[in-house]
Amino acid sequence: MQDPDLLMDYCVADQASRTPPFFFNGELCKNPALAVADDFWTSSLSKPGITGNLFGSNVTTTTTKNLPGSNTQGLTMARIDIAPGGLVPLHSHPRGAEVVLLLKGTQVMVGFVEAMENKLYVQQLRSGDAFVFPKGLAHFLFNLDGAAPAVALAGLSSQSPGVQLVPLAAFRSEPRIPEEVLKKTFRVSGQDIQRIQRNLGKEKKEREKEGKTIPFLVVFVVDSVALLGLVIEIQVMQVEL
Amino acid sequence: MQDPDLLMDYCVADQASRTPPFFFNGELCKNPALAVADDFWTSSLSKPGITGNLFGSNVTTTTTKNLPGSNTQGLTMARIDIAPGGLVPLHSHPRGAEVVLLLKGTQVMVGFVEAMENKLYVQQLRSGDAFVFPKGLAHFLFNLDGAAPAVALAGLSSQSPGVQLVPLAAFRSEPRIPEEVLKKTFRVSGQDIQRIQRNLGKEKKEREKEGKTIPFLVVFVVDSVALLGLVIEIQVMQVEL
Amino acid sequence: MQDPDLLMDYCVADQASRTPPFFFNGELCKNPALAVADDFWTSSLSKPGITGNLFGSNVTTTTTKNLPGSNTQGLTMARIDIAPGGLVPLHSHPRGAEVVLLLKGTQVMVGFVEAMENKLYVQQLRSGDAFVFPKGLAHFLFNLDGAAPAVALAGLSSQSPGVQLVPLAAFRSEPRIPEEVLKKTFRVSGQDIQRIQRNLGKEKKEREKEGKTIPFLVVFVVDSVALLGLVIEIQVMQVEL
Amino acid sequence: MQDPDLLMDYCVADQASRTPPFFFNGELCKNPALAVADDFWTSSLSKPGITGNLFGSNVTTTTTKNLPGSNTQGLTMARIDIAPGGLVPLHSHPRGAEVVLLLKGTQVMVGFVEAMENKLYVQQLRSGDAFVFPKGLAHFLFNLDGAAPAVALAGLSSQSPGVQLVPLAAFRSEPRIPEEVLKKTFRVSGQDIQRIQRNLGKEKKEREKEGKTIPFLVVFVVDSVALLGLVIEIQVMQVEL
Amino acid sequence: MQDPDLLMDYCVADQASRTPPFFFNGELCKNPALAVADDFWTSSLSKPGITGNLFGSNVTTTTTKNLPGSNTQGLTMARIDIAPGGLVPLHSHPRGAEVVLLLKGTQVMVGFVEAMENKLYVQQLRSGDAFVFPKGLAHFLFNLDGAAPAVALAGLSSQSPGVQLVPLAAFRSEPRIPEEVLKKTFRVSGQDIQRIQRNLGKEKKEREKEGKTIPFLVVFVVDSVALLGLVIEIQVMQVEL
Amino acid sequence: MQDPDLLMDYCVADQASRTPPFFFNGELCKNPALAVADDFWTSSLSKPGITGNLFGSNVTTTTTKNLPGSNTQGLTMARIDIAPGGLVPLHSHPRGAEVVLLLKGTQVMVGFVEAMENKLYVQQLRSGDAFVFPKGLAHFLFNLDGAAPAVALAGLSSQSPGVQLVPLAAFRSEPRIPEEVLKKTFRVSGQDIQRIQRNLGKEKKEREKEGKTIPFLVVFVVDSVALLGLVIEIQVMQVEL
Repeated sequence: MQDPDLLMDYCVADQASRTPPFFFNGELCKNPALAVADDFWTSSLSKPGITGNLFGSNVTTTTTKNLPGSNTQGLTMARIDIAPGGLVPLHSHPRGAEVVLLLKGTQVMVGFVEAMENKLYVQQLRSGDAFVFPKGLAHFLFNLDGAAPAVALAGLSSQSPGVQLVPLAAFRSEPRIPEEVLKKTFRVSGQDIQRIQRNLGKEKKEREKEGKTIPFLVVFVVDSVALLGLVIEIQVMQVEL
Repeated sequence: MQDPDLLMDYCVADQASRTPPFFFNGELCKNPALAVADDFWTSSLSKPGITGNLFGSNVTTTTTKNLPGSNTQGLTMARIDIAPGGLVPLHSHPRGAEVVLLLKGTQVMVGFVEAMENKLYVQQLRSGDAFVFPKGLAHFLFNLDGAAPAVALAGLSSQSPGVQLVPLAAFRSEPRIPEEVLKKTFRVSGQDIQRIQRNLGKEKKEREKEGKTIPFLVVFVVDSVALLGLVIEIQVMQVEL
Repeated sequence: MQDPDLLMDYCVADQASRTPPFFFNGELCKNPALAVADDFWTSSLSKPGITGNLFGSNVTTTTTKNLPGSNTQGLTMARIDIAPGGLVPLHSHPRGAEVVLLLKGTQVMVGFVEAMENKLYVQQLRSGDAFVFPKGLAHFLFNLDGAAPAVALAGLSSQSPGVQLVPLAAFRSEPRIPEEVLKKTFRVSGQDIQRIQRNLGKEKKEREKEGKTIPFLVVFVVDSVALLGLVIEIQVMQVEL
Repeated sequence: MQDPDLLMDYCVADQASRTPPFFFNGELCKNPALAVADDFWTSSLSKPGITGNLFGSNVTTTTTKNLPGSNTQGLTMARIDIAPGGLVPLHSHPRGAEVVLLLKGTQVMVGFVEAMENKLYVQQLRSGDAFVFPKGLAHFLFNLDGAAPAVALAGLSSQSPGVQLVPLAAFRSEPRIPEEVLKKTFRVSGQDIQRIQRNLGKEKKEREKEGKTIPFLVVFVVDSVALLGLVIEIQVMQVEL
Repeated sequence: MQDPDLLMDYCVADQASRTPPFFFNGELCKNPALAVADDFWTSSLSKPGITGNLFGSNVTTTTTKNLPGSNTQGLTMARIDIAPGGLVPLHSHPRGAEVVLLLKGTQVMVGFVEAMENKLYVQQLRSGDAFVFPKGLAHFLFNLDGAAPAVALAGLSSQSPGVQLVPLAAFRSEPRIPEEVLKKTFRVSGQDIQRIQRNLGKEKKEREKEGKTIPFLVVFVVDSVALLGLVIEIQVMQVEL
Repeated sequence: MQDPDLLMDYCVADQASRTPPFFFNGELCKNPALAVADDFWTSSLSKPGITGNLFGSNVTTTTTKNLPGSNTQGLTMARIDIAPGGLVPLHSHPRGAEVVLLLKGTQVMVGFVEAMENKLYVQQLRSGDAFVFPKGLAHFLFNLDGAAPAVALAGLSSQSPGVQLVPLAAFRSEPRIPEEVLKKTFRVSGQDIQRIQRNLGKEKKEREKEGKTIPFLVVFVVDSVALLGLVIEIQVMQVEL
């Protein structure tokens, strides 16, 4: 399955040494003799994520940064907050399967598209229901309830499953995918594409010009914490819209 | 990490064909053309487990039986109910790491023992806190609150992590580990051992004689759903105590 | 990495036994004593694929069907034909990385979008050039030359890497992803979506009604050969356009 | 299975660079150009281990320290010496299966407890017999012969299988597992627990106060050589008893 | 590393069902409810192998046939008997590393050739010494002592490491590698090649004509027990020389 | 399968930091923020290899040096040039399977020897044909056409499959495998062996004395790029013959 195997009881991610020019496929370990219980503990998922953004949703995950003891254990936990009518848009995890469990909410539609025949598997979840998103396949969560927010918890089968949002990858990559490629891919006009691109929020460069790039984002650029990054990116947008 | 890799988008566990004399390391797949959304959905974790047993706790998990679509996805989700003052006793998962997240409860003590120096890493969790139990190491969860029950959700890094409870493995195996071995292992007398064995509930054979073995248990014997088995075993005890 | 490990020198995929109701995560092996050199040989990639379809491209791959000896060896080879101005549209492989080598063509633009910051890595290839598409990330190939076709060979790091085309997964799944989800995902109107869906070719059901589903496709439905399937689907479309 | 894959012919563990603050999940490699035959050779298993300790047994293993060339090769070899009537107490390896072969001895009882139903599989070995301990399950070896010592050789399926002794993990962790947890786990009184804890030898801190901690132990604390560490710990106890 | 991961506590190889036309990459499991201690036990390595053959050596291994409980545990144990002056000729294991421990013998030369620069790592072992043969590299064991036999035990990092003997693979394959290829490979004449081929024992077909193929060999042909097969092949030769 | 799993979208091999005394099982990553499209691109396979050497063949491969973005992606691509009548001599890849596709040539004989019964699987390829060499097994490619060169492309299932040439490993290791071992292995005389050794080209030391070791080779010695190294070694010989 995903993720390298352990050769120690644990390898607590070493935060101190995470500085250029050293980058690994994974993380250095903290001196095992200095490991403390706090390294295996986090309250990162205890607070609701801010959903006042473009999609009306927010995903917060454990990472080797906020939960160093999860390094090399092959698992990520995630908290998903969805505003009334909000959406976690179509996306895939390049390195992990996901099982999601609805904690709060009565009408959350979830679905994934299989890769062979593009079959859609879709289900409406009530609180207490769980659903599987197979590894690497595009999926979404949609809160049909226009009045009440939904909260879900998910497990993912890697310490770094990654996340690729279909709309942002297709229309908001930097630099842009050439218009000709997008036109042929989606069978739309150049005007359609420009409209979609505009609708998906301001440019990163524009936001930077306006001084709205928060410092944390710079740190983030050299970090491998993919899922969290996505959320932050969206939160920045929200301020500007 | 744990678990074989996928060679298909999914391999929904085929319940129909799970009959002797065919056993695999894993499961047969359902005909992919017949897979439906229900295969990826379960409400198994929606109801509280019955905690009126010896330890005052209950663990319910997703399996390839109640969530066939989780087969080959490398992940198990578990719901842990702990009565006031209840305990999930010292145990290890031979094939998986675990991250637990406390949903309800204010004083749940969790801890694991590292294998090199027997260092104990212990933490008191409040609702919203998460904690890592590294792969294969002995750990426990204890609800210090004598008045209110606790509920936690956990992710485990295998579709079949297994579970070995230290007290039952040591003192209640069938047949028993020879008394001489236990005396030398724990430095106790034969009388101590017999007392511990009695205290850990009635014999399986006794219970069978009393007709208290539920039919499902027989089915379970030839099944690989380890975590669930444990829960059922404990629930059976509770009836008799 | 991807794919289960071998426990034999080879496990030639057993074509004869590939009949319902037996499905595995992988393939049964042919009796090793009956394996012949032909099992390790194929000419499947020797002929150009038909590119007269919607996207103007065609991908032919080795599979455990046309090259049974490739079973359990962790590798797929693919031949990519692109008509003048043709495109292999934005897609990802859920279970494999890819290295592509341009054999014929002077102006083939290739690119992938990274999952953390949506950075696009794009390059123009000439004959003899190779390029890496990391595992699970969205990528495309576009023949800028409007006059001459291009041919490329690729290796993929799994015997069954799978393929998910972004436009078909998003807009042409069966059943469709609910319009509300697509509207929120791409920030477009319902009319836009219906237009995109129409532009991406006739419905599978329509085609079936017209009797244009070729027999091979039926066999394909219960088979795990993902990449090949895609090509056939597109070829069917082309007949109807 | 266990252990990361090789990307070189060998990666001889680099002893020189094993100094804080660098710790990995695994080991740095020695410059391949400087590798010598001695790196692949050890006589560590040639001498009998000292069995004059609490349990009357001793386990010596190959490690990346005494056999640097075994790094990244996925295998540990162990020599097990058991005094007349001695015991290798109940323990599990979090990261490896074991096959043991009895070289000397006529009445060595071996057994493991399965994790689903707590079934005990027990066998009496004679010289030349081999037995399997499945990965992660609790097992023991007991020399029934009160007059003659026994010697066994074992292979383990990881370069760092780890070892967790049930009695020490349960009763002698540092700090101690809270008495309330142990009382509920084993259904014994607080006095029982204190007696068991005393019987399992002096405290590490007491021994340190008496100056009986050998220097090597300090080095060992920051090292990942789990199995060997256990033996040394026991040998220190023996001096004091 | 090598070998698929376990999804059960054990998967005892099911001997009964090992009949055509079912072949797997691995083995079916015996019904877990019927597993007995004997499945995890073997005395196969207790008796010396017959070394009166062409090379003066014999290798006996645990397999899923003689030790069904070793299935899925990622480990093979081997006993190596070498006559005075005998040789385990140059060979490699396609699917496993090896650590060998000399039990009896004072002058056993062992060596392997690294694959990058063809460096030979060679060492002379005395009883109690261990040596590593890295995964997939050519190696040999040679008993320099012309008077006393040697015995060694080895662990290999797969339940089915396989073995390819250089002299037999190069000169005694069936059918033969074309003479022109061998001439160019080893820079020798056709006469040299024919002489080497003759010297390496009688043809399999000749032996079969003489009725010297033992029945077990026929069974073996459809079996995946590679190491054992080699030994048997050699023993047959010895009868005829 | 082969190769560790990714924990990032990519881990471009960091060329700058590849200096003693740091060696890994794998490579350090370049700062992800500095990755550019060029890191995923190479033209290394665009030019024909020089085949004017002992065997009349040349293998050029992608490596983490000439294609840094292929690091951690589990795949190598190779270009094989064979002169008229030339041979890629008997060899095996310790860490990878191979699928070869003939691009140019009409009569290229390919074959591999299976490890259980030494069965040879041999096939004659025409342009467009593909053939599988299973992982770890000895194989060869021979251009039967005495007039025209052949060109093939291959994929290998590891970023570092390694290569061990049977004739060089057996007869030209440094130091030499003792003559007695080779005599017994191949059943030839000492004179035969010395002749074979001479025929396989000049000694490395002789060549060094003559100043014919090119500087790159020195760099190469401390590098893990196995396949490429082989080719260079042969090219040096050719100058001297």
